[in-house]
Amino acid sequence: MSHPNVNALWAETLVAELVAGGVEAVCVSPGSRSTPLTVAFAEHPDITVFSHLDERSSAFFALGRARRTGRPTPLVCTSGTAAANFHPAVIEADQAGVPMLVLTADRPPELIDSGANQTVDQEKLYGDAVRWYRDMPEPEAEPRKVRMLRTTAARGLAAATAADSGPVHLNCRFRKPLEPTPVAADDPAGVPDDWDEHGLAAGGRDGPFVTTGHGVPTLDESDQRHLSERLAAADRGLLVAGPAHDGLSAEGLRALADATGFPVLADPLSNLRFGPHVEAIEAPVCGGYDAYLGSGAAREWPDPEVVVRFGASPTSKPLRHYLRDADCRQFVVDPAGTWTEAEFTATDLLIADEDATGRAVAEDVETRPAEGWTERFADAEAIHWSVVEDALADTYWEGGVLADVTATAPDPATVFVSNSMPIRDMDRFGRPRRADLTVLGNRGASGIDGITSTALGAGSATEDPLVLVTGDLAYYHDMNGLLALGRCGVDATIVLVNNDGGGIFHMLPIAEHETFESQFRTPHGLEFSPTGALYDLSFERVPDRASFVAALEDSVGSTGTRVIEVPFDAGSSHAVRDELEAAVGSRLD
Amino acid sequence: MSHPNVNALWAETLVAELVAGGVEAVCVSPGSRSTPLTVAFAEHPDITVFSHLDERSSAFFALGRARRTGRPTPLVCTSGTAAANFHPAVIEADQAGVPMLVLTADRPPELIDSGANQTVDQEKLYGDAVRWYRDMPEPEAEPRKVRMLRTTAARGLAAATAADSGPVHLNCRFRKPLEPTPVAADDPAGVPDDWDEHGLAAGGRDGPFVTTGHGVPTLDESDQRHLSERLAAADRGLLVAGPAHDGLSAEGLRALADATGFPVLADPLSNLRFGPHVEAIEAPVCGGYDAYLGSGAAREWPDPEVVVRFGASPTSKPLRHYLRDADCRQFVVDPAGTWTEAEFTATDLLIADEDATGRAVAEDVETRPAEGWTERFADAEAIHWSVVEDALADTYWEGGVLADVTATAPDPATVFVSNSMPIRDMDRFGRPRRADLTVLGNRGASGIDGITSTALGAGSATEDPLVLVTGDLAYYHDMNGLLALGRCGVDATIVLVNNDGGGIFHMLPIAEHETFESQFRTPHGLEFSPTGALYDLSFERVPDRASFVAALEDSVGSTGTRVIEVPFDAGSSHAVRDELEAAVGSRLD
Repeated sequence: MSHPNVNALWAETLVAELVAGGVEAVCVSPGSRSTPLTVAFAEHPDITVFSHLDERSSAFFALGRARRTGRPTPLVCTSGTAAANFHPAVIEADQAGVPMLVLTADRPPELIDSGANQTVDQEKLYGDAVRWYRDMPEPEAEPRKVRMLRTTAARGLAAATAADSGPVHLNCRFRKPLEPTPVAADDPAGVPDDWDEHGLAAGGRDGPFVTTGHGVPTLDESDQRHLSERLAAADRGLLVAGPAHDGLSAEGLRALADATGFPVLADPLSNLRFGPHVEAIEAPVCGGYDAYLGSGAAREWPDPEVVVRFGASPTSKPLRHYLRDADCRQFVVDPAGTWTEAEFTATDLLIADEDATGRAVAEDVETRPAEGWTERFADAEAIHWSVVEDALADTYWEGGVLADVTATAPDPATVFVSNSMPIRDMDRFGRPRRADLTVLGNRGASGIDGITSTALGAGSATEDPLVLVTGDLAYYHDMNGLLALGRCGVDATIVLVNNDGGGIFHMLPIAEHETFESQFRTPHGLEFSPTGALYDLSFERVPDRASFVAALEDSVGSTGTRVIEVPFDAGSSHAVRDELEAAVGSRLD
Repeated sequence: MSHPNVNALWAETLVAELVAGGVEAVCVSPGSRSTPLTVAFAEHPDITVFSHLDERSSAFFALGRARRTGRPTPLVCTSGTAAANFHPAVIEADQAGVPMLVLTADRPPELIDSGANQTVDQEKLYGDAVRWYRDMPEPEAEPRKVRMLRTTAARGLAAATAADSGPVHLNCRFRKPLEPTPVAADDPAGVPDDWDEHGLAAGGRDGPFVTTGHGVPTLDESDQRHLSERLAAADRGLLVAGPAHDGLSAEGLRALADATGFPVLADPLSNLRFGPHVEAIEAPVCGGYDAYLGSGAAREWPDPEVVVRFGASPTSKPLRHYLRDADCRQFVVDPAGTWTEAEFTATDLLIADEDATGRAVAEDVETRPAEGWTERFADAEAIHWSVVEDALADTYWEGGVLADVTATAPDPATVFVSNSMPIRDMDRFGRPRRADLTVLGNRGASGIDGITSTALGAGSATEDPLVLVTGDLAYYHDMNGLLALGRCGVDATIVLVNNDGGGIFHMLPIAEHETFESQFRTPHGLEFSPTGALYDLSFERVPDRASFVAALEDSVGSTGTRVIEVPFDAGSSHAVRDELEAAVGSRLD
């Protein structure tokens, strides 16, 4: 292949290696300094380009795609503050372990700290939030440098997708000419005429220049036996699946659950609360624990003797406190070896693959819990869901929306749930279901920035219908993300739970103080319906449950994007939550 | 003063010291962890709270206020990605030397890297972009710690407003209770009953706990004489004022210009192209150089022998190249001692106060340039402005909008100009005028993010009418910033130059390549009029020059906010620029 100049050689080689390594798409924001990368991606036949005008939204879009696919979608931006707009999504990718590959264009070294335009210090811009950072050398048609470039592409993808997956940042410096203008071979920016012959050591390599095999961390016999023996000996045990995007599989969970008979407490973001396994597993897969584990009745239950935890810290505070207060052995299985348990009560950290661990236990163990243990959870679940069902017939509250979305979403579907109240309501009111629902959220840093873009990025990676449940503050925060609907060809059903401000603050003690209304709830009074005309989507405000469910069913069954706004009073919704929790508690007594 | 708990003591003390140090307002985004700071600011009688829902916009708003006032408006946000949303504005503040004080709330140290919710690594989050960073100790009612806190407030303000002014970041850790709930004096979170008596060493201090006096860097006699002698000996000299927000004053410029008789080339962002001095100075204050310094005629002019430069690197590329190619002595006067001259042609860096230097030269020097030198610039200016005036009668192009805004803006007014094409058009077509126009832009990192918020922040600090000239990409990028109009009580006239995409890329060689339309110009087809209903502003699209000028005059003379959209074809506008430049060049020949 011939290249018009060294920048084109460099960018085309990098893109070719990324494609060979499995990259299929890129998120690009227009800019001048990034021209070599943009052109190389755009001209590659196997790349889909998602063009975003706001880099913050672009980065969240790439994050969402990676959440859905498990593979990074590279990000390209020009030099300057553009790169800083990626920072919120980079932090979310770090905290949640989502693969990400950031390619920032930069000026050549002599212009740094010189007063040159759009030239800022991009070195280690994201600090310790990235798994790997490289300030790339300047493009040159020199065999060792180009081998280094090919290798860097492979290393970047490997670092982003390792057991400790996360963001990788390559800062790419280019000097003019940035566009693919032919330059004479003897120009400093030129490529020698006989370039392809120049000892690249590429012979005999098909596919990527470097292929990467990721070993799976596997427990040795003694650690494995320790876990199996504890499980086999326990009368009362629990399997807890926290938020995870690529952790324990349904098969792994089923093997472990069927071998032990222990109840499964599945976070809505564990990817294990929904799916065919929910009915295939003998023990209950629980989703109502957020409502009953804090009750007086549950406090009278005997403690579990052993808990095996997967994924991140559960969304449910009652569950976290229940585990904190349980006098028992707590295993945390995490192949990345991070610490995801902020109460510091885990007893055993197993740095091992979740599925391999689950399968090994299933081969070792065949036990049953003590009579009554699993039944307690089954009964509590039955009571909780019956209370919720009854309530839905009489009243409607924010949590009811999440109950209805969970029950109504098509099979399969991707459901993205915003932070703050929607994810908490999904946790409590999203009933386990045998449908193949991929429920996603940004639970790494739990921000309300970038929610829409992350959801649309996830939606861009699948043919499944996409449902986003968001609040008014999150909807406002990433309104720019709606541009991707048309620009990136994504359809969505967006459920906008509008309580005009920070509804979650009603849950906090500050609700009693006089600055609450002006500085915390901060009602904005925004009338969002003009976003329909702005972003060419259908916008509808529904007055009640029946019309909401009808609109939801209609939207997920048709093309185009519809925003279904459901107005609520946050205080009333909190009151219903409290009433239902009390009702469950009293029926458990 | 009694405090309900240590967090309140800490936050109230910090706020009291900031107020004593001159802080009058704060930008707050709602959040839980930042509750102590939010409440302390909100309850202080001398503080105006600007509440922003999007932290990115909040930070640019604070940046804009500081550009207009020269003093920082502190920023408050909760923990997590919220703080990363400040990053683009922090970089702009760094590059442009704008005072900024970032107060990020954070979790207590034991929760860092634990999997706790909304807990990220905020230490040195902005890297080297801040002048000073402190990870604050945990609040405690302990005299030495509280003296340290008071001192830190003073140091933070001093660092943000020093000669090398810029952003300061204090990471403030709080543990519950976050709200001002009374806690018993003997609780770890409590404040002793006799707290005020506890040896704070505050006696005899009125005003701030620590007052700061900023010394002014003044040249010694030999450096001063060196400059004066060069100026006195030169037949041909130039005074170049680049972008600056608080540098050389009109009086300082006038003293220097009148002492030397040298022409002044005033960047539109120098704060010296407009004002009464423009007519009071004997030599011409030039604003058309961007059009004629690159012409063949100007290349035949004799080089200047000496140039004195102030502020940052000029916006005008023809000017930068003219200075690069001039065989002469070039003095750069910069009290911060940074390097703002990316062509690396300056011969003398004078780390000294601009006004003090100007006044000292005025006392030393009384000279006149050689016959014909100053006249060349006066003639070129006359030709340029006459060409522009003639063109305006016949045709309309993007640059005409900037010409009309400059001529029509009331006296006084604040005019904020976006990056990309608007600032370049202001540079070429904004005619020097004796009116008191404060022209501002984000020329530190030259991003198109945060333009609207920066403008509204500047507008929030003055009673002058505010005019913002922005492009469609910048308008889209910071649409969220429009919320501040109602929420923060700012009125503006927003001139939206809409060429449906990245018009500036027409100027670059990439315009010849096939990816230009899809990846660079990237037309978005957005119909912006719904932002009128969304943000409760008046939105109007005008078809021609006459209706534009009428709408502009009407808007600046009335309350409320109006967006005046002027549609253009970017290619045609570039053609007019080129034609006018050619016309000026040929008349100069």
